[in-house]
Amino acid sequence: MPNEILLNAFDMNCMAHQSFGLWRHPRDRSVNYKTTEYWTDLAQTLERGLFDGLFLADVLGTYDVYGGSPGAAIRTATQIPVNDPTLVIPPMAMVTENLCFGVTGTLSYESPVPFARRMSTLDHLTGGRVGWNVVTGYLQSAAKGTGQVDQSAHDTRYDIAEEYMEIMYKLWEASWSENAVRLDRKAGVFADPDRIEQIKHDGLYLSIDSPHLCEPSPQRTPILYQAGSSPKGRSFAAKHAECVFVVGPSTAVLTSVVADLRQRATDGGRDPADLKIFAMMTVIVAPTDEEAQAKLADYQRYVSHESALAVLSGWTGIDFSHFSLDDKLTNSKVEGIQGVMDAFTADPGRVWTIREIAEKIAIGGPSPVVVGSPTTVVNEMERWVRETDVDGFNLARVVAPETFVDVVDLVVPEMQSRGIYKREYRPGTYREKLYGRGPHLTTPHPGSAYHR
Amino acid sequence: MPNEILLNAFDMNCMAHQSFGLWRHPRDRSVNYKTTEYWTDLAQTLERGLFDGLFLADVLGTYDVYGGSPGAAIRTATQIPVNDPTLVIPPMAMVTENLCFGVTGTLSYESPVPFARRMSTLDHLTGGRVGWNVVTGYLQSAAKGTGQVDQSAHDTRYDIAEEYMEIMYKLWEASWSENAVRLDRKAGVFADPDRIEQIKHDGLYLSIDSPHLCEPSPQRTPILYQAGSSPKGRSFAAKHAECVFVVGPSTAVLTSVVADLRQRATDGGRDPADLKIFAMMTVIVAPTDEEAQAKLADYQRYVSHESALAVLSGWTGIDFSHFSLDDKLTNSKVEGIQGVMDAFTADPGRVWTIREIAEKIAIGGPSPVVVGSPTTVVNEMERWVRETDVDGFNLARVVAPETFVDVVDLVVPEMQSRGIYKREYRPGTYREKLYGRGPHLTTPHPGSAYHR
Repeated sequence: MPNEILLNAFDMNCMAHQSFGLWRHPRDRSVNYKTTEYWTDLAQTLERGLFDGLFLADVLGTYDVYGGSPGAAIRTATQIPVNDPTLVIPPMAMVTENLCFGVTGTLSYESPVPFARRMSTLDHLTGGRVGWNVVTGYLQSAAKGTGQVDQSAHDTRYDIAEEYMEIMYKLWEASWSENAVRLDRKAGVFADPDRIEQIKHDGLYLSIDSPHLCEPSPQRTPILYQAGSSPKGRSFAAKHAECVFVVGPSTAVLTSVVADLRQRATDGGRDPADLKIFAMMTVIVAPTDEEAQAKLADYQRYVSHESALAVLSGWTGIDFSHFSLDDKLTNSKVEGIQGVMDAFTADPGRVWTIREIAEKIAIGGPSPVVVGSPTTVVNEMERWVRETDVDGFNLARVVAPETFVDVVDLVVPEMQSRGIYKREYRPGTYREKLYGRGPHLTTPHPGSAYHR
Repeated sequence: MPNEILLNAFDMNCMAHQSFGLWRHPRDRSVNYKTTEYWTDLAQTLERGLFDGLFLADVLGTYDVYGGSPGAAIRTATQIPVNDPTLVIPPMAMVTENLCFGVTGTLSYESPVPFARRMSTLDHLTGGRVGWNVVTGYLQSAAKGTGQVDQSAHDTRYDIAEEYMEIMYKLWEASWSENAVRLDRKAGVFADPDRIEQIKHDGLYLSIDSPHLCEPSPQRTPILYQAGSSPKGRSFAAKHAECVFVVGPSTAVLTSVVADLRQRATDGGRDPADLKIFAMMTVIVAPTDEEAQAKLADYQRYVSHESALAVLSGWTGIDFSHFSLDDKLTNSKVEGIQGVMDAFTADPGRVWTIREIAEKIAIGGPSPVVVGSPTTVVNEMERWVRETDVDGFNLARVVAPETFVDVVDLVVPEMQSRGIYKREYRPGTYREKLYGRGPHLTTPHPGSAYHR
């Protein structure tokens, strides 16, 4: 059990992220996602609660499996519209001093040199408070939408990702060596070209021939996030990631996932404690258990089956529009559906109706939902950490920003009083805050080998 | 002569933009380009001076023609390091209400769907105060750096650009029709899918199959800038651009450029006055002519020949490292050099030494440099407008931000007292401020035809 539990807020530059239909709740403000104030207010709330980070997910396609069109997703604002996540980070950094920011970058759609520059610019502007969630892309609609005939096969995508990471490390770590920037006004030398390497990479999938276009930012390589759950994905995470997002319906499921990730890190020569693992969780908290249950019941009045099924169809590839809400999901009806349901719910083997699974997904998506008083909630968080060996939680919102405000006002003080949550931020960059070491990747992380 | 002269500030997310070596000046602050405060301070200065816009140039490669390497450019901070320009716009929009922002987007390196989303996100976050400078890319090093074997041939690049614009108009104007967003909480309908078109484009160079991922932003299509100077480039500008950047060493040269642009617009069925044409200019102003000349002399002490020649080599493709500073540039020495020099200087036929041309370029790049008291400077600006029919100026900086502060404090009041500069901003979006009409493209602009 670590001394301190880490907290990330999990959000997206859109309305319905992990709760579906809730934008209709009278107190929900997610319709303002397109304004700067919405994000700066959120950042200030999270910093008030000493959250470690705000993580912004992203997709570049639509949920168009349900009914064979994006119609249901569009009607219900289900991860569409979705604005660019990087652009809201500089304003949030302006109004905060310590909150860190993670952002998804889907490498299939990002040219390496401009993308490396975008992340370095963020790292400069935030004073080293930025992380990158390495995503290879999972929506076929995004591949199609961006002019790629087909998504690369899953394993090939990870091969491309390996090569992409190699290029990123070369740009961020190798291109500008230490002391390359001299800033010698008298001699007229800003930087020493002999200490700046032209990165020539001619690989199987990618080629570049350029120096990094930015001078070294506080962290050089931003904090690396990953969320892969397949064997290839877990190996990739265990090798490259500093923060890993996991999601599981029960501590039983997560325990083996976390153990496997840490074992893979160990096998690769890394300290398994250097993987900071965040379990997705949704918390509905109120001063008493009864009030929290009443809050849940109120939220449930606003769920949208259509929205939840649109997103679930996208995640699973199963078109749930072919069923009526009262249909039962059995393997005889949909091949392998029991396994899919078990992955999203904490009742292995239970047969679900479409309505039931939609209502499960509609609040907190695939995450466990913890409802209760601060005592109840923090007990449950402690149990998850104890049983699964995660380092903290990636908290989704139900009503924006109410869910986060509630956590800051009620959960954080309870955690602090138990001595399992910080009372102030550590100084420095994201990496310094997470590890209490320096701002840069260090050995044996594979990226550190590129540092000159 | 228009009633009001328009003013743009011309800058870049880097140190040496259009003046070279001046980062060494004791008052220059461009070394802080990587901080948010540098940009928010600049934005507030420009808004205090009622500047119409701040335009951010960009390159994605290095100036590596000089000496066959980027060494000289790196040593002298010549447009490298260069950070991402889009990310400093949201913070600047936060601290201003009316200043507008133009940004270069090089379409060769931007996937259409994510790029359209990035610009729409900026338009949302700025309340409709954003413009896009359509650039096809000119540095071979950028093409090479981003994994393209070779730059597309110049004319082909414009064919690709035409197709790219068609896709952008489809995404911005056609995909989400008017009233597509219903925001009906009771019915649970955020948007009406029947009013949102999946853009299927299968062209010669590009293909997409996606709706626009953003709901309509205030302007839908951002204000379109262009700066092409070749015949193909001018035709492209006359067809698509709302703002055109031109640069010429004398009113004589610019007069024919401006007339040609307006003629091409007329030939295409547009009102030639709807092209807002900005001439690049560098202003060094002080209370008296003598003080301004002294300021110029002081600035000249900091010019870097190497930096100026690195950028000039990149612009012209001629490697000036082969010459000594006192060599004279004659056609017998470098084929066609006289024509090149005439394009950068106001003395047709004059034979330049390398030193002289470097010192010319080192302050204000290719632009005319106007030095004097407010009276002298504004007389000269008025003359340029009268003789060339431009709408305003794209003002480069010598010392950052001093050059802009001087213009705001000294030039703007002089222009206002002559009644040729606004005393307050027009309300609304960038397009409303520029034209005094609505926020959207209107007929006969080709983009307006896509609006449903």
